[in-house]
Amino acid sequence: MTIRLSRTGLAADGQGPLAAFVTFVDTVLRGVGQVMLQNNSYAGLLFLAGVFYNSPLFGSAVLLGAATSTATARLLAAEPAQLRAGLFGFNGALVAVALMYFLQPGVLTWAVVIFAAAASSVLMAAMLTLMKVWKAPVLTAPFVFTTLCVFLATARFGRLQSTDQLPTAGLPHAVTVEGVVTGSTVVEGLLSGVAQVFFQASPITGGLFLAGLLVSSRQAGAAALAGSLIGLMVAWGMGAAEPAIRAGAFGFNAALTAIALASVFFRPGVATLAYAVLGAVAATVAYAALSAALAPLGMPALTLPFVVVVWVFVLAAPAFSRLQRVAED
Amino acid sequence: MTIRLSRTGLAADGQGPLAAFVTFVDTVLRGVGQVMLQNNSYAGLLFLAGVFYNSPLFGSAVLLGAATSTATARLLAAEPAQLRAGLFGFNGALVAVALMYFLQPGVLTWAVVIFAAAASSVLMAAMLTLMKVWKAPVLTAPFVFTTLCVFLATARFGRLQSTDQLPTAGLPHAVTVEGVVTGSTVVEGLLSGVAQVFFQASPITGGLFLAGLLVSSRQAGAAALAGSLIGLMVAWGMGAAEPAIRAGAFGFNAALTAIALASVFFRPGVATLAYAVLGAVAATVAYAALSAALAPLGMPALTLPFVVVVWVFVLAAPAFSRLQRVAED
Amino acid sequence: MTIRLSRTGLAADGQGPLAAFVTFVDTVLRGVGQVMLQNNSYAGLLFLAGVFYNSPLFGSAVLLGAATSTATARLLAAEPAQLRAGLFGFNGALVAVALMYFLQPGVLTWAVVIFAAAASSVLMAAMLTLMKVWKAPVLTAPFVFTTLCVFLATARFGRLQSTDQLPTAGLPHAVTVEGVVTGSTVVEGLLSGVAQVFFQASPITGGLFLAGLLVSSRQAGAAALAGSLIGLMVAWGMGAAEPAIRAGAFGFNAALTAIALASVFFRPGVATLAYAVLGAVAATVAYAALSAALAPLGMPALTLPFVVVVWVFVLAAPAFSRLQRVAED
Repeated sequence: MTIRLSRTGLAADGQGPLAAFVTFVDTVLRGVGQVMLQNNSYAGLLFLAGVFYNSPLFGSAVLLGAATSTATARLLAAEPAQLRAGLFGFNGALVAVALMYFLQPGVLTWAVVIFAAAASSVLMAAMLTLMKVWKAPVLTAPFVFTTLCVFLATARFGRLQSTDQLPTAGLPHAVTVEGVVTGSTVVEGLLSGVAQVFFQASPITGGLFLAGLLVSSRQAGAAALAGSLIGLMVAWGMGAAEPAIRAGAFGFNAALTAIALASVFFRPGVATLAYAVLGAVAATVAYAALSAALAPLGMPALTLPFVVVVWVFVLAAPAFSRLQRVAED
Repeated sequence: MTIRLSRTGLAADGQGPLAAFVTFVDTVLRGVGQVMLQNNSYAGLLFLAGVFYNSPLFGSAVLLGAATSTATARLLAAEPAQLRAGLFGFNGALVAVALMYFLQPGVLTWAVVIFAAAASSVLMAAMLTLMKVWKAPVLTAPFVFTTLCVFLATARFGRLQSTDQLPTAGLPHAVTVEGVVTGSTVVEGLLSGVAQVFFQASPITGGLFLAGLLVSSRQAGAAALAGSLIGLMVAWGMGAAEPAIRAGAFGFNAALTAIALASVFFRPGVATLAYAVLGAVAATVAYAALSAALAPLGMPALTLPFVVVVWVFVLAAPAFSRLQRVAED
Repeated sequence: MTIRLSRTGLAADGQGPLAAFVTFVDTVLRGVGQVMLQNNSYAGLLFLAGVFYNSPLFGSAVLLGAATSTATARLLAAEPAQLRAGLFGFNGALVAVALMYFLQPGVLTWAVVIFAAAASSVLMAAMLTLMKVWKAPVLTAPFVFTTLCVFLATARFGRLQSTDQLPTAGLPHAVTVEGVVTGSTVVEGLLSGVAQVFFQASPITGGLFLAGLLVSSRQAGAAALAGSLIGLMVAWGMGAAEPAIRAGAFGFNAALTAIALASVFFRPGVATLAYAVLGAVAATVAYAALSAALAPLGMPALTLPFVVVVWVFVLAAPAFSRLQRVAED
């Protein structure tokens, strides 16, 4: 067996358990990389390092989740190319870290994490069928729906307890401007906006994530930073609460949207750039809207704004001749 | 005219009003049977007997609803094969029994029942077109949406009053384990879980429903019982409230999901069995989640968890080569 | 350059800025006309007159919104025939008037109006792709989703303040019959029901809208009046609150549904007529249901009931051989 290093990760030639193991590890890392749309195991490794830096517990959850959902897809014999690209790993990774973040740890919680990560692979497969009709990507929708389903179930299941990170259920109401945005708000918010993709409100974790993106694609790294900045500026301009801006709450959906629109789905160009900026602004408004819409349920918006806005902008593209979609794989 | 007994129901040869009447009755009974996915008028008759045993009022509602929605589809000249298989009857049957269960009886309520049962046929036709794109079944989605629409409308229409069976609108909140599950909880919950498909919390009705399933398909009967048991065990293990477990609240969606996945849509086998078990567990969690999600509206989840989980598992199947879909009719 | 008057609007032959301007104005007016499904700039002009009669502020908003969304679509090089028919104008027109009606005016609000009107064109393009699979129309769905998104965002954005026209968030609850319906309720409600399509509760505005419809299509005018009447009668019969009936709240969705089903999508005939009546009744119940469903968010139902009901009735039609769809353009 020989292990080769390619531009995007490891490849093990030959057969046997060791080759299978190396391939599995590389697939899991690509799964972590796909959380920010990078089919790249070096990016995955740096994302993992960023999460571990902030919290070994959350880092372990990311690994377990990505491994479980990837293994489930293998067991059910999913399409090999999609599997190998990490497409059955990123939802499991996010499901696991979100459940550990919002639920109190315990044996039952870990069992639920494994079940939910496995279920996210079934949902991923279902949504691949669903979206194929429009040649649109599934994005992190399976993560969002699986996670919300488990969180909502805590209202019926007495042995599943949420942490105080989950918002308290309440009716949405008008707000006034709260707090003053300073230079430190902007710097912290900018990097935390990237870190929040994995629910880590740490600027250093955000920096490691950016490093991972830059290793995989310079455009993706630039787009993430620009997206987080756009989210922050829009939130500031519209009078969002300063602590939320500082924590990067308005950045992660805009960052993911900018990565997707500016560096993944469309050919570079002026129209693409303008479209991506419009998308990042829309994702910020959509984050405000969806987090308010979920307030009566006490549920977080997660990456749903990113999913919805990218769906809209990808579906809209065929009508606009100035935009050119990157050829499907 | 001769009337023949086939393995699945009656068939009237020849023409004339009597033959038309026999065909209509058989079609309505198949409609009742299709509530648990059985194109079988004997099963429909036993289901009807089960409901009448518990309540003649609800039994009459089932008959009226199935007849109204079937007649509406005939009037609009729906596709004959689908009509004859009872596909335009089961939603009307469920709409009618749900409205009578959750609304106060009266002339206006009966008029609303007839209108809603008719509307459910239009919605059924729409969803057949919608789901054809993915070759996915419509299931009881038209029933769920029609019924929720009428229940929600009571908040604007002063002459439509709900019974106290409808949950009070309230924000979801954390719960603790309530009550102790005993042997009688398990036995009652198991059978009531099957009976709740028609909103009847009666173990004897559940037994009659099982008899109807066994007449039509032994696998379906076994799947219903196993599904109800899985729902009960998951709810118990997760710490759901004992009264809800006893009443079968966590059983009916899991039972329907098990029938669909294990005995209707996939060829038997180990992978199918594992898939159906995963589906029944998912349906139980989805029931907890969706009933919490509808809490601020004071709405019941009805069979929405079953619908959503079976859609996901049917749409996911093409990606998993171990699962073989039963050929479309 | 010569300007010709056709049966449905202006056409400028030749090139140059003036011809382009005349074409743009005519396109914007068709966009206003398409709010009630009329590809007719005279109808658009009369609708505009109706809004201006009631409020110059709202009239200006309609013009600005239609112009912005049309210009956005042109910038992105949308499909010329759809653009020219006003299909990228009506959502922007409605977005703008709804935002001005429900938000406090100010520089930021006007900026949001322009951004939202532009975004509605992207959403329109996305939904054209989405619905093409079923050959179903997009209707005013982009308006509804864009507008609700901005309204919901006010719960996070301190500089965006709603007016007291927006309902207060509250849980839905049972109601009793409120007020007495008199002759003046019926007359006012009938005309206001048509006027409410643009959020104008003025009988005279409703009359001008009817004039616009009659200029474009006598069937459309008759359908709008009949639809508004059906909505009013159903609401009255079911015990809705008298002030809401008088204001036309139960009329506008039924009126739009009647226009769509009776005069736009199906060939005239008895089955079509019965179908349209059923649709108008369903739209009225759906309005009650959706406005209750959105109550915990404090959001208005806007024209969502019309959109949902027409989708269902258009998707259902292929199953019913008595109904004949008008050929696609």
